[in-house]
Amino acid sequence: MAQSADKHETESRLETLNEALGSGAFLQIRRMLNGLPPVDAAHLIESTPQKIRGVLWQLVDIENEGDILQHLNDEVQSQFLSQMDAEEVAAITEGLEADDIADILQQLPDRVIREVLDSMDHQDRVRIEHVLSFDEDTAGGLMNTDTITVRPNITLDVAMRYLRRHEELPEMTDSLLVVNRNDQFIGVLSLRKLLVSDPSVTVREIMDTEVEPIPANMSTREVAQLFERRDWVSAPVVDENHYLLGRITIDDVVDVIREESDHSLMSMAGLDEDEDTFASVFTTAPRRAIWLGINLLTAFIASAVINLFEGTIEKVVALAVLMPIVASMGGVAGTQTLTVVIRGMALGHISRNNSRWLINREVLVGLMNGVLWAVIVAAAASYWFDDYIIGGVIAAAMVINLITASLAGAVLPLILKALKIDPALAGGVVLTTVTDVVGFMSFLGLATYFYR
Amino acid sequence: MAQSADKHETESRLETLNEALGSGAFLQIRRMLNGLPPVDAAHLIESTPQKIRGVLWQLVDIENEGDILQHLNDEVQSQFLSQMDAEEVAAITEGLEADDIADILQQLPDRVIREVLDSMDHQDRVRIEHVLSFDEDTAGGLMNTDTITVRPNITLDVAMRYLRRHEELPEMTDSLLVVNRNDQFIGVLSLRKLLVSDPSVTVREIMDTEVEPIPANMSTREVAQLFERRDWVSAPVVDENHYLLGRITIDDVVDVIREESDHSLMSMAGLDEDEDTFASVFTTAPRRAIWLGINLLTAFIASAVINLFEGTIEKVVALAVLMPIVASMGGVAGTQTLTVVIRGMALGHISRNNSRWLINREVLVGLMNGVLWAVIVAAAASYWFDDYIIGGVIAAAMVINLITASLAGAVLPLILKALKIDPALAGGVVLTTVTDVVGFMSFLGLATYFYR
Repeated sequence: MAQSADKHETESRLETLNEALGSGAFLQIRRMLNGLPPVDAAHLIESTPQKIRGVLWQLVDIENEGDILQHLNDEVQSQFLSQMDAEEVAAITEGLEADDIADILQQLPDRVIREVLDSMDHQDRVRIEHVLSFDEDTAGGLMNTDTITVRPNITLDVAMRYLRRHEELPEMTDSLLVVNRNDQFIGVLSLRKLLVSDPSVTVREIMDTEVEPIPANMSTREVAQLFERRDWVSAPVVDENHYLLGRITIDDVVDVIREESDHSLMSMAGLDEDEDTFASVFTTAPRRAIWLGINLLTAFIASAVINLFEGTIEKVVALAVLMPIVASMGGVAGTQTLTVVIRGMALGHISRNNSRWLINREVLVGLMNGVLWAVIVAAAASYWFDDYIIGGVIAAAMVINLITASLAGAVLPLILKALKIDPALAGGVVLTTVTDVVGFMSFLGLATYFYR
Repeated sequence: MAQSADKHETESRLETLNEALGSGAFLQIRRMLNGLPPVDAAHLIESTPQKIRGVLWQLVDIENEGDILQHLNDEVQSQFLSQMDAEEVAAITEGLEADDIADILQQLPDRVIREVLDSMDHQDRVRIEHVLSFDEDTAGGLMNTDTITVRPNITLDVAMRYLRRHEELPEMTDSLLVVNRNDQFIGVLSLRKLLVSDPSVTVREIMDTEVEPIPANMSTREVAQLFERRDWVSAPVVDENHYLLGRITIDDVVDVIREESDHSLMSMAGLDEDEDTFASVFTTAPRRAIWLGINLLTAFIASAVINLFEGTIEKVVALAVLMPIVASMGGVAGTQTLTVVIRGMALGHISRNNSRWLINREVLVGLMNGVLWAVIVAAAASYWFDDYIIGGVIAAAMVINLITASLAGAVLPLILKALKIDPALAGGVVLTTVTDVVGFMSFLGLATYFYR
């Protein structure tokens, strides 16, 4: 997804764009779009509403379409792709890197992918089919095939002469990959090392054989964690027989990291991390509706709990006034715990061995904060309604609900993960149901007992 | 912050660790900690509760302390640093990169930093003081001083011979920085280009002068966006007179990206992105208490609104049963909008020029979903309480609150940002207050009117 280098820059470009659109100065817009670096043009297109986007895309010169397209997010990509036929797609993606073409094709229906591949030349087709054969979320789907390989028995001098025969080296090339005569990966020779070593030694003598190559079926998430830990710029990808398939570069890994991190944030609001900020009303409304519907169910469950205590509320209306406090404090405390645990899981900090400690800690924190705020709320409620019983009841309910909330916030993500349900997506809904039900139940239940 | 390369690996290490701790096999733990790559040892330490951490830190050999320390998160770092005196800090950080030492020192009080600097040798002190003179959140604070510079008038052959005089090149060196005789930055010569070019040409002929160097006072956020857009591995940093100060490398930028992304997630739950997953109860409880206190205030505001309609609730208890539905649906709808807008702002998609469109879109989405769920809730409520009035009232309140929620979710972050208040931190609280107040007010207010 395209990032903004400079907010003010994007803003002033958008202003120019709006003025030009207003006065119909399409030639000016065309010059602007095609003059910008493709990633900046993509960012500008992403920052406009759907209707204007269509106009902008018409103004992009055909030779720039592929370059700009690869920097757009999935949703905008598929919007534009849906208006092209297979030959157009094949034409505009020509010259892009294999992994970028594969990413673009994955937005299309299978039938169209087939057609696009058929209209490519043989060599390109084989290359793309190879990348497409791997799952998008694996190392194989992330890799590129632009490796530079050398044999271990040549001298550095020969290696340097071999390099000099290239017009240019692929972007992000920080090392040569050493393979045996069967094209199996055996080591890495970094350019940094190549440049400081005696030209007469052989590759074998100075190559690094400690680097573990990445298996093609490793998840992109694990790949990102390896890159972060090992400070790699690029890394080789191999199949199960150690045949070199390609390499992964840090620029693609950065995108994975960005998406990973966005995932937790967006999922907790029931949104997709690929969500287009400027999708149309008719795209946005149905998506949001589903999440609202799920939450409506949990709200009705809470209402059903309240309904059990109708008689008590009729007697003591102050209960209706205070009951949202207990539920809402539980929700907040639970969400805090949930967020900490989900983040800890994403960082790989939480495992079977320390989760019990974490649950205990959270329950203790819930207890301490429950007691603290129970005292304050009890004092306020007693004073407000001039009724000590209601103060006592709300205090007890608050302690019960904050402990429950902390426990649920810590345990739920672990359970959901074991059930292979995304904790960031489902955690919040289940948690709120728990804190609402327990909050209303304990508060109104205790009140029913004490106001008999 | 240390990342997990392999969940199972961390898990099995934690298991081994726990067993060893249980049986008092400290020698085994010591071997394990000092045998792991420092980043893995740091990850293991971060994944243990505070009490065990202290024990583990005792078992780290002094020559590994600095390497492991630099990979720990800020909270754990300062925990360990607080037990050392200035000389120890100076001793263990010796040999680390200048930016990493500066990061560590920034956890210490000013007085101690001074002492640590005084016990370093002159050259190191000057180097660190230089990095420390820049704000932690700027390019200057992120940069390293390990640049390799060349003059434009030498030939590539001379440049290569110069490189070969080095024992090794600094990590992440993908280019040589070209400076004039005043040490002012004039261009970049990538190793990729150096390796494919004719050795007899001069640096000047093939260097890239298009690369805009990064000003030392640029925010790390903007630096990260530049790296993401331009696919850089490293980039030069200059002062206002174009003097070369150092360079920023992608590994440090990845950390910035990770922290940036975590910030929104954690802030929305009132947490700090540096929050230690395994902080003790007594560190955690007070921090969480503040956020709960703020939320308690908003809950009391909601209660005050309900209290206005005490008389109506006494007459129609069903209102107390249904009122949380209206408030909670508003909260959910508002949070969705808020999250989309906050993410859009982080990606630099939202500016003055398109925010009106976005606000309109959100209000329309709120209207459409308001009407949809109003119909469903009205039908359910009418049937449940066998009362059409209550169905009509909840439907109207639902539409009002969902529109308000969408409007507030879109407008609030823009207002907060203009006021220089972090929307991710404050947005949720303000939003919930709005949706609670409007939800209860509209529902109970309309009910009061119709049940006169």
